[in-house]
Amino acid sequence: MKIDGTQYRALWYDGNVVKFIDQRKLPYSFEIFTARTVDDVAFAIKEMVVRGAPAIGAAAAYGMALGEKETQKSAELLRSTRPTAYDLFYAVEYMVQAINHKENAFAAASTYVEDIIIRCKKIGENGEKLINDNMKILTHCNAGALATVDYGTALAPLRVAHGKNKKIFVFADETRPRLQGLLTAWELFQEGIPHALIADNAAGYFMRKKEIDLVIVGADRIAKNGDFANKIGTYEKAVLAKENGIPFYVAAPVSTFDPKLKDGSQIVIEERGRKELSEINGKTIMPDWVSVKNPAFDVTPQKYVTGYIAESGIRKKWL
Amino acid sequence: MKIDGTQYRALWYDGNVVKFIDQRKLPYSFEIFTARTVDDVAFAIKEMVVRGAPAIGAAAAYGMALGEKETQKSAELLRSTRPTAYDLFYAVEYMVQAINHKENAFAAASTYVEDIIIRCKKIGENGEKLINDNMKILTHCNAGALATVDYGTALAPLRVAHGKNKKIFVFADETRPRLQGLLTAWELFQEGIPHALIADNAAGYFMRKKEIDLVIVGADRIAKNGDFANKIGTYEKAVLAKENGIPFYVAAPVSTFDPKLKDGSQIVIEERGRKELSEINGKTIMPDWVSVKNPAFDVTPQKYVTGYIAESGIRKKWL
Repeated sequence: MKIDGTQYRALWYDGNVVKFIDQRKLPYSFEIFTARTVDDVAFAIKEMVVRGAPAIGAAAAYGMALGEKETQKSAELLRSTRPTAYDLFYAVEYMVQAINHKENAFAAASTYVEDIIIRCKKIGENGEKLINDNMKILTHCNAGALATVDYGTALAPLRVAHGKNKKIFVFADETRPRLQGLLTAWELFQEGIPHALIADNAAGYFMRKKEIDLVIVGADRIAKNGDFANKIGTYEKAVLAKENGIPFYVAAPVSTFDPKLKDGSQIVIEERGRKELSEINGKTIMPDWVSVKNPAFDVTPQKYVTGYIAESGIRKKWL
Repeated sequence: MKIDGTQYRALWYDGNVVKFIDQRKLPYSFEIFTARTVDDVAFAIKEMVVRGAPAIGAAAAYGMALGEKETQKSAELLRSTRPTAYDLFYAVEYMVQAINHKENAFAAASTYVEDIIIRCKKIGENGEKLINDNMKILTHCNAGALATVDYGTALAPLRVAHGKNKKIFVFADETRPRLQGLLTAWELFQEGIPHALIADNAAGYFMRKKEIDLVIVGADRIAKNGDFANKIGTYEKAVLAKENGIPFYVAAPVSTFDPKLKDGSQIVIEERGRKELSEINGKTIMPDWVSVKNPAFDVTPQKYVTGYIAESGIRKKWL
């Protein structure tokens, strides 16, 4: 992705450390977080220095390389960071196999990461075919380059369409509590793609006014029947899209697919802390007595999905 | 409503001034805003010192009394403050008639306000019948005492149920961008009613998990066919409630009913400024380059409404 004209990835291997664009600081300031150990990488995943399923997978791959001397311990540590995104478990397993097969761990991690980037690029090329000139597209959370190392999943088709000079307008759901919509707005701003940030409450309003033609979201874990977990609020948008006759697409690479799960009811949903609601960018916005519930993801049943934008093409059913 | 054990109203006439609990400051601090002129009242409505359709109506009634010497000018000023809540126009018209009939303006305004309070109390008594022991109820925005002078519309049935020792649990939607869910949480906290604040994105998640048994919201304007405007996001919750088979009720007094409107498509939706999204409690939470769209209300079609909780009883159809 371009940032002030310079090409960046969400994270990269640099000598013997892994560097991350610190997504806790964006879009207020652009800072680099350096991980020297697998513990640092685990911290980065847990605290959301890096977030987004494919990017978490990439971080885990590099983390396994940093912690390769204690393969099992590193794998356990990384698997314990966050429960919902499948790419994390996929990448750890990939790296365990590579290390067991005596591959060079950093080379294997790099292969994993380059592969993810190629897959996202293909998702962009495939998804671009859904986008007509003058379309208005809604996305939820950030499934951009920041979430996937580069290109993005949900945002990849928008980048490709914009690159082909198609006129598009993007509605970016704010995505409380963590406001990842700001990350999406930041990426679109960097690319010069016209957009507006809206309160999550307003998506239905614009759908009903026929101001949204298409919805594209990412995914954190996909079950065999096509049910998928994604950032909290995705289910709401999917139901509203169906009610308003708007196509709803899920963009995700194969690393997000958990073949052990029959359906979405088996997906573990992470509950995160109170502070995600009560603080923004370190500033307290709610008194101490306010009690909250904060599920980080929800599950959207397959029946709400028009299609899946995968690296292999667009499919009506996941399997 | 009780605040730290003392009985309060959202606004009240005090000598020759009107006093408001300053809802811009809640729940961070409890401050009183004093309006000495109709211009002060217009400011209070526009800047949301007072908000909520019935409370805006009450403020307008007192405002007309403060500005009675220039009846038409005061009426025009007040009508220009906010476009969506019908109670504002209803109250101004009521006061114009009273002043034209040479009634004492302050007495007429007081009658209007006492009447609203009685209506809300009846809404509470009627709506309480919908609430069974151990029910979990979702509400959106704040349709409590703060929004209606006292008791509330959507919150009135919950107060009555709690007063009858029914065990209830309230999910309060945060209600971005203005976070009126904090006002709801504050009222529930003051009354000792168990509750949790949730991100607007999470309501669908809890509905799908069968953790919500009933939805009650207020209204800002109701058309003849029962379509109604309410705080942005209400439409989303209505669609989700229907999709999940959860009863969805609208609680409102007759002053919210606009008999001139055939249906909801005729309701004017207020667009408010960027700062509502970009600042919270005076603190900037988004960089300057973030562009936003900020509709303040949406319209929910009648077909999503299980029933209307009015002062006259519960009806399946509005008319």
